[in-house]
Amino acid sequence: MTTTADPATAWRLGSGEGVSEETLERVDRWWRAANYLSVGQIYLLANPLLRTPLTRDDVKPRLLGHWGTTPGLNFLYAHTNRAIVERDLDAIYIAGPGHGGPGLVANTYLDGTYSEVYSHITPDEEGLRQLFRQFSFPGGVPSHVAPETPGSIHEGGELGYALSHAYGAVFDNPELLVLAVVGDGEAETGPLATSWHSNKFVNPARDGVVLPVLHLNGFKIANPTVLDRITDDELVALMRGYGHEPYLFVGGFDDEDHLTAHARFATLLDEVLDDIARIKERARAGDLTRPRWPMIIFRTPKGWTCPPEIDGKQTEGSWRAHQVPLANARDTPEHLDVLRGWLESYRAEELFDATGRLEPDIAQLAPHGERRMGANPHANGGLLTRDLRLPDFRGFAVDVPTPGGAIAEATKVLGEWLREVIRANPDNFRIFGPDETASNRLSAVYDTTSKQWNAEYRPIDDDDHLAPEGRVMEMLSEHQCQGWLEGYLLTGRHGLFTSYEAFIHIVDSMFNQHAKWLKVTQRIPWRRPIPSLNYLLSSHVWRQDHNGFSHQDPGFIDHVMNKKAEIVRVYLPPDANTLLSTYDHCLRSRDYVNVVVAGKQPAPQFLTMEQAVAHCTRGLGIWEWAGTEVDGEDPDVVLGCAGDVPTLETLAAADLLRRNIPDLKVRVVNVVDLMRLQDEREHPHGLSDRDFDGLFTDDKPVVFAYHGYPWLIHRLTYRRAGHANIHVRGYKEEGTTTTPFDMVMLNDLDRYHLVIDVIDRVPGLGSQYAGLRQRMVDARLAARQYTREHGEDIPEVRDWVWPDAGDAVGQEAAAALDTGGDNE
Amino acid sequence: MTTTADPATAWRLGSGEGVSEETLERVDRWWRAANYLSVGQIYLLANPLLRTPLTRDDVKPRLLGHWGTTPGLNFLYAHTNRAIVERDLDAIYIAGPGHGGPGLVANTYLDGTYSEVYSHITPDEEGLRQLFRQFSFPGGVPSHVAPETPGSIHEGGELGYALSHAYGAVFDNPELLVLAVVGDGEAETGPLATSWHSNKFVNPARDGVVLPVLHLNGFKIANPTVLDRITDDELVALMRGYGHEPYLFVGGFDDEDHLTAHARFATLLDEVLDDIARIKERARAGDLTRPRWPMIIFRTPKGWTCPPEIDGKQTEGSWRAHQVPLANARDTPEHLDVLRGWLESYRAEELFDATGRLEPDIAQLAPHGERRMGANPHANGGLLTRDLRLPDFRGFAVDVPTPGGAIAEATKVLGEWLREVIRANPDNFRIFGPDETASNRLSAVYDTTSKQWNAEYRPIDDDDHLAPEGRVMEMLSEHQCQGWLEGYLLTGRHGLFTSYEAFIHIVDSMFNQHAKWLKVTQRIPWRRPIPSLNYLLSSHVWRQDHNGFSHQDPGFIDHVMNKKAEIVRVYLPPDANTLLSTYDHCLRSRDYVNVVVAGKQPAPQFLTMEQAVAHCTRGLGIWEWAGTEVDGEDPDVVLGCAGDVPTLETLAAADLLRRNIPDLKVRVVNVVDLMRLQDEREHPHGLSDRDFDGLFTDDKPVVFAYHGYPWLIHRLTYRRAGHANIHVRGYKEEGTTTTPFDMVMLNDLDRYHLVIDVIDRVPGLGSQYAGLRQRMVDARLAARQYTREHGEDIPEVRDWVWPDAGDAVGQEAAAALDTGGDNE
Repeated sequence: MTTTADPATAWRLGSGEGVSEETLERVDRWWRAANYLSVGQIYLLANPLLRTPLTRDDVKPRLLGHWGTTPGLNFLYAHTNRAIVERDLDAIYIAGPGHGGPGLVANTYLDGTYSEVYSHITPDEEGLRQLFRQFSFPGGVPSHVAPETPGSIHEGGELGYALSHAYGAVFDNPELLVLAVVGDGEAETGPLATSWHSNKFVNPARDGVVLPVLHLNGFKIANPTVLDRITDDELVALMRGYGHEPYLFVGGFDDEDHLTAHARFATLLDEVLDDIARIKERARAGDLTRPRWPMIIFRTPKGWTCPPEIDGKQTEGSWRAHQVPLANARDTPEHLDVLRGWLESYRAEELFDATGRLEPDIAQLAPHGERRMGANPHANGGLLTRDLRLPDFRGFAVDVPTPGGAIAEATKVLGEWLREVIRANPDNFRIFGPDETASNRLSAVYDTTSKQWNAEYRPIDDDDHLAPEGRVMEMLSEHQCQGWLEGYLLTGRHGLFTSYEAFIHIVDSMFNQHAKWLKVTQRIPWRRPIPSLNYLLSSHVWRQDHNGFSHQDPGFIDHVMNKKAEIVRVYLPPDANTLLSTYDHCLRSRDYVNVVVAGKQPAPQFLTMEQAVAHCTRGLGIWEWAGTEVDGEDPDVVLGCAGDVPTLETLAAADLLRRNIPDLKVRVVNVVDLMRLQDEREHPHGLSDRDFDGLFTDDKPVVFAYHGYPWLIHRLTYRRAGHANIHVRGYKEEGTTTTPFDMVMLNDLDRYHLVIDVIDRVPGLGSQYAGLRQRMVDARLAARQYTREHGEDIPEVRDWVWPDAGDAVGQEAAAALDTGGDNE
Repeated sequence: MTTTADPATAWRLGSGEGVSEETLERVDRWWRAANYLSVGQIYLLANPLLRTPLTRDDVKPRLLGHWGTTPGLNFLYAHTNRAIVERDLDAIYIAGPGHGGPGLVANTYLDGTYSEVYSHITPDEEGLRQLFRQFSFPGGVPSHVAPETPGSIHEGGELGYALSHAYGAVFDNPELLVLAVVGDGEAETGPLATSWHSNKFVNPARDGVVLPVLHLNGFKIANPTVLDRITDDELVALMRGYGHEPYLFVGGFDDEDHLTAHARFATLLDEVLDDIARIKERARAGDLTRPRWPMIIFRTPKGWTCPPEIDGKQTEGSWRAHQVPLANARDTPEHLDVLRGWLESYRAEELFDATGRLEPDIAQLAPHGERRMGANPHANGGLLTRDLRLPDFRGFAVDVPTPGGAIAEATKVLGEWLREVIRANPDNFRIFGPDETASNRLSAVYDTTSKQWNAEYRPIDDDDHLAPEGRVMEMLSEHQCQGWLEGYLLTGRHGLFTSYEAFIHIVDSMFNQHAKWLKVTQRIPWRRPIPSLNYLLSSHVWRQDHNGFSHQDPGFIDHVMNKKAEIVRVYLPPDANTLLSTYDHCLRSRDYVNVVVAGKQPAPQFLTMEQAVAHCTRGLGIWEWAGTEVDGEDPDVVLGCAGDVPTLETLAAADLLRRNIPDLKVRVVNVVDLMRLQDEREHPHGLSDRDFDGLFTDDKPVVFAYHGYPWLIHRLTYRRAGHANIHVRGYKEEGTTTTPFDMVMLNDLDRYHLVIDVIDRVPGLGSQYAGLRQRMVDARLAARQYTREHGEDIPEVRDWVWPDAGDAVGQEAAAALDTGGDNE
């Protein structure tokens, strides 16, 4: 990939002439305007420019918002505008302290973006009135930086992800600068604390630049912040330890004149940007060693410019300024007067003309067009999204001569296709994972790419696929992987996150926030669809041979299901060919969260590619070859299955039934797309009742072997006519064992138990096949006893293959299992 | 609280005489023995002392375990043993790299603990054989440090929590030393990265000491680690930035002689422990300022002492040593020979006598009795648990003259009781929360205690309840709160975690691991029950007036429900008195996870304390006063409700029905204990079908207003006879609004919609009450319109009170709502 901008202009040094007083005055006027608009949004229903004396009725009855962080955010925004114009920077702004919603709204209103995307919020007094009124108001906009906020890729509700989002945005965007403001409250979170280390994963030539600003205003809701209450020595050491060169700015204290503060900060920002320009210059010249990237420690008073005291209590510079400093503005004339005085302190009459339009000299501070941070297309990534060039996955198919007639590792096969995806898309596709890409058997990708790494190298790394540039991002932090990927997707690129199934719960709350973001953006016309967030969960619950109970948790699927049906998709491909077909679909999709669970262990393959494509297209279907149905008659029992291990056990059960109860009409239904089980009124993929009953019947027993917690299948099917007949086996928190069959037995999901379930549920079988039932009970005991004696599964299970598959396959399966798994 | 040990002996300085060669020799012999036993566990089925030539059959068929981190853990264990004996330390060991399970098993076997708790693992050759065989073997013990491992309070499966567990353990344990080994892989996780800051929350006199050891062995599964690949300057700066004094140890490289390494480390450890002793001395003398606590950077080769190369590839000192370095020990005679040579390198014949017992001189390295880290009662906290002295909660009751006849903030009332709990239990009860104790309205606790804080103080903190000692622990990291509390509970003390409901998902995976720990310990006889993990989730989904959509997620309940029924409890008390009764119950319980969701906003109160106790004892029940049943007859419809806001809307709906359809027989059932809905076969709290049907009927429509995602109620009740008649309203991911009623309307949970639901579901009402139905539709539109115009809820809703409650209450409610909420 080459840089898209002219290197002679991108990342230029500053003029070196300093900032003129006129410019500083303009910066200050912008800042005052942004602050005024922020206070106005929190407090005012009407009378936006105080053209008439402020009355109680001008004030909102319920005051909801956060002032504390806002003036600092506004200060930084104004100064960054100045720098963008002077250096023609391509920059976006991430507000870690997302509670400062009014600030980001204000700035994008000032630069004109807001009125462009919301045409009713006009640049005049009436527009101001509406701007104020809508904020944190029923039917209006949220109080946080949110999808509704132009220029944002970062919801400010849940804290911790500002830096990982920022780094995700700059990967493969060599000319992009992300000003990433980190609140000192947010800085206490775990995800943020580790995300400083992202600088070891940046390529200084091919990636852009994150400029972190630690916004140290000292207080959270009701407490001081840790980083504000350690010595400067410790704080500077911490930032150096993280690999940064800290620039310390302390402003706004002891009645410092605002213009002085502006002058000092403008100088500091120019130094920082020059530092970045020099680093970029070195990188362009081929020096890719990790630079000591600059960062800014920005210490200013909390709630800067609000009343110093309210009701005799310190407010500015205290936690009392965190939310609504004057919470009872309507209750007394005195309080109303405090609000009036506060608003008037910004001298709006100098900032807006008679019609309410921003004075032209202030407006000049804003960059033009897409250089405005509110209008930068990187912050509306769908605008920049290019479709992936996807090689035909059919070319990577496993040859399956008969069902069960091949052994393959599903994720390994997928890795071969992903290698070609990477080849074909060298600058807009990445794989993220916490040190598990190889463990999850995707190593084929290393034939064409590496893990991007910009820390020290040692000789032993030669064969470890590390390089300054690579498509695979690995750090042992699921938070980082998720945050980076989100930032990458939100700026319009593609990727996937491969994780151990159990530990994806680490990012449950991040998933929540991303799913909410997607849901909201679908109703915002100017937000363009972005590539889906794709999970590949391997090393799943049933094959934790090395790790046992702590690594067993299939509940992410349940977690995902609580989000909007229009957003979430869950796939459980039973073999390699279905996994290929599924993933091709996922990488083509937009605005979804796709959860794909697939095994990595050697396992029998069931479908040819043609069958796999058809099966995935339907999402579920009858596997005629596995059942013993008679044409035109209802089956006696349906064996449902979803997930690779449950499918294997179900087929083995079907085999046992066929051999032992030859007259029984068994239907086998496999489910790839879990959402198909749901009602069509609940999910766009849902089946009609008629189609569902056509597959599962409305009156026959269904024994369903499911990959995860059994209750989910009930939740999905409780409205179906035959629901009372559905009996589900799944994971029920019984673990800690080391052989595959022992594990399924612990949870009653094994073939023998499925046969018992059938005997117990099909009318009449119980009495007729009591002997078979006892043999199944005995077989389980024998299998259990065998593992305890030999440490591996009993050969009749381990070597079992689907009857038509041939013995050679069984030997191959046994040999593959013999060495144990290699999962972490 | 006073210290429990004699200050003259606790935290003594070392002898200053250095460590004798004899002792170093003994340390090395212990280390060799521990390493030998570790390799034996991973590989050997039989022939544990190689009394006969090693054969293929002696080797386990499936090799499952992790060697890489183990020798380092063993090295530290041996040295700590030496120091414990010399200084009479009260110490436990937390193995962050929990994959090193064989190491911790080995050491506790060597010190005799293992054979004491597992009598069949005898200190002889047969015991060794069983010790080896059981490891990571079906029916045996897991490969990680786990509940089964004596001396452990820390499962090693999911990484990130070693330090927060360690700090939780030392709070209020002034004489306890926790050696907390942090893997350099783990160090990349977010939770670990922020947990270094725990040192700002420790009281150096009243709390114990955490000695962090950063175990820098350089590799994860397939990658180098970040902290191993930055310069020593950066690493030292990072640790200083975190507030530590780092001691750097580099050992085992370049063929360093083991005794030399031991000598150097012993000297360093003595320096560190002297440093700690001096800090403790100063603290005892009254200097509580935050010391620069020492920590150790321990850089040794990954897989230290395993074969340097296997099959021509570097193994020791590489990621190839992470798991089973020689994965195919059985496949060729050459590989078997590598294993034999590796085992023989430890010279077991010098370490164990002819019977297989450890040589007495080595055994002497172990401390005695409870000073052994395997037998230290702090690591089996139930042994040390004292019941809380709980003041009678009835004394804190809200006076409720008639149902709805009082307004109160439930959590505020709870706070008053918690204040007395703290007074009565000054050294074994703490409250943990991410800056939300005040926001969640528990501020009454500050009448008697403070937030513990050991960073800088400023004058403004005077009224902020910060102090060097306090019962409230607040850091803006849910991970820290959870980890600290877990450590505190696992060492036998009590506490609760108060969080915003939505953001408790941040610790989903930590909850998983703790629930799994509790489940496993219940089947380990020597593990004694520990106090329950109590959540108080406030600022819940329905009242995010300030924050909107990003702060709305009631799904933690769903997440919790996937864990074992014997562990989890979920309570939704509808008012203050039920909350008091519920929490009293929770603080008395053991080995559970109790999730309590309760509102903090001013709300009507319904039950007298006597009624509340009875209601909570039953867990659910009919509120006769709210219904219009006729004695001896079935109702026409049942209104079910769970959660404070749904209960309010249900009562308002019942009021509307009573006034508008006077003949309708309405039953109102409120649910406090959600598990009661489940079948008695599924959960110990579950209702029998007969009791369930007695409440909800088996054929009448049930309109159920639920706090969370509606599907959960279906999941809990799908087996009930009347399930098809249950219609649930709950949260369905529709948010972003700022008034309470607008929010419930968005999700169709409001009173008007509940009435519509009743009309649509009770046979015959639809035609007869079409006019009423239309009025309900119109009322919703009017209410919606009103909020959009006025920014607050329509008075008829806002001022509504239960008919018998009196108008004064309505005015009070309206006044309380008028100022808006104050949630963050």
